[in-house]
Amino acid sequence: MKFSGILNVVLIVILLIVGVNMFSKNDSGDQVTPDRSASSVSEVIHRRSSVRDYTTQKVSKEILEELVRAGMAAPSAMNKQPWAFIIVDEREILDAFGEQLPTSAMAKKAEAAILVCGDLEKAGEGWLQQYWIQDCSAASQNILLAITELGLGGVWTSVYPAEDRMEKVAKMLNLPEHIVPLNIIPLGYPSQPDQPKNKWKPENIRWNKW
Amino acid sequence: MKFSGILNVVLIVILLIVGVNMFSKNDSGDQVTPDRSASSVSEVIHRRSSVRDYTTQKVSKEILEELVRAGMAAPSAMNKQPWAFIIVDEREILDAFGEQLPTSAMAKKAEAAILVCGDLEKAGEGWLQQYWIQDCSAASQNILLAITELGLGGVWTSVYPAEDRMEKVAKMLNLPEHIVPLNIIPLGYPSQPDQPKNKWKPENIRWNKW
Repeated sequence: MKFSGILNVVLIVILLIVGVNMFSKNDSGDQVTPDRSASSVSEVIHRRSSVRDYTTQKVSKEILEELVRAGMAAPSAMNKQPWAFIIVDEREILDAFGEQLPTSAMAKKAEAAILVCGDLEKAGEGWLQQYWIQDCSAASQNILLAITELGLGGVWTSVYPAEDRMEKVAKMLNLPEHIVPLNIIPLGYPSQPDQPKNKWKPENIRWNKW
Repeated sequence: MKFSGILNVVLIVILLIVGVNMFSKNDSGDQVTPDRSASSVSEVIHRRSSVRDYTTQKVSKEILEELVRAGMAAPSAMNKQPWAFIIVDEREILDAFGEQLPTSAMAKKAEAAILVCGDLEKAGEGWLQQYWIQDCSAASQNILLAITELGLGGVWTSVYPAEDRMEKVAKMLNLPEHIVPLNIIPLGYPSQPDQPKNKWKPENIRWNKW
């Protein structure tokens, strides 16, 4: 009777410890790395959406640089890395984007923006030069995924090949001729949760032949 | 005594169930998604490299479809989703890529390939049509990251805008005029570990102005 009673107490204590442990494991994992540990690449790829409204919380210079670091890890044709990145965190410039470029209006609400630009001096010669568009697009997608992973939100607003937008941006940022802005990615901490679009369409897939 | 004995048995059984559950949770998580749980997006972005040599291990149709699913989650200008994906897993076609397209020679060693194509019928009108290149490049980068996450390896081999390659691919796969192949991504299980390039160049960054 006594032994059995002690055994019961011991078993109950072990059960409690195991139970608490199970829950606390989940909790601490969530706290230390809010999005990363829980987010596989696929999860982030499917969670990413175009976020156009942000809180006034600043984005640190370290995070902005980390986002660009992700961009530079993209592949490029013949490894030319024909890109340049302009990080904008000055209110005045962000507002100018928003006012002068209707397609980038949300920059007025953003605390930062990254411009992904082609650097034609680093690009190939002749028709090979065109690859900067593909390379910089891959870099842009890396940046958007890194934004999503870090709990930020952003949106790809296009500049190239719209001549008027390219000219305005070149003037605003004093760009030399060989630097061509592909896009402006306004970003910040999302003001509300966002629902990504489901764009899965099996009819977009063919096997082996058309 | 009897009640206490039953309680003991019940408690021990609960402990066993909880214990088994804890371990099996970890195990099954690891088995189903070998790399995912350990890989943040940033880690995969920086680990991705152009893998050109593969084992003869087949890539399942489920995985190939999952890769394309990642592609379709990319953003696109005005949400046109101007893309089509051709999944190739027939030896004959992979060999034909390798033989007829020197830049895609590694397709001969690959067990599969994904072609990311622009669908001009879904693209915008006039100059807006050009956005398919950026949109399909973002989709391609999603596919490359999903490949890396799953422990596979692949490489973006370009087709567009090289006229001769575009013609050869169109003929091989019987593509209609409005389907433009951007690239061929041969893929498979890597035959050896690969070291990604470090492409971090702080001089590629400007803050606020050129």
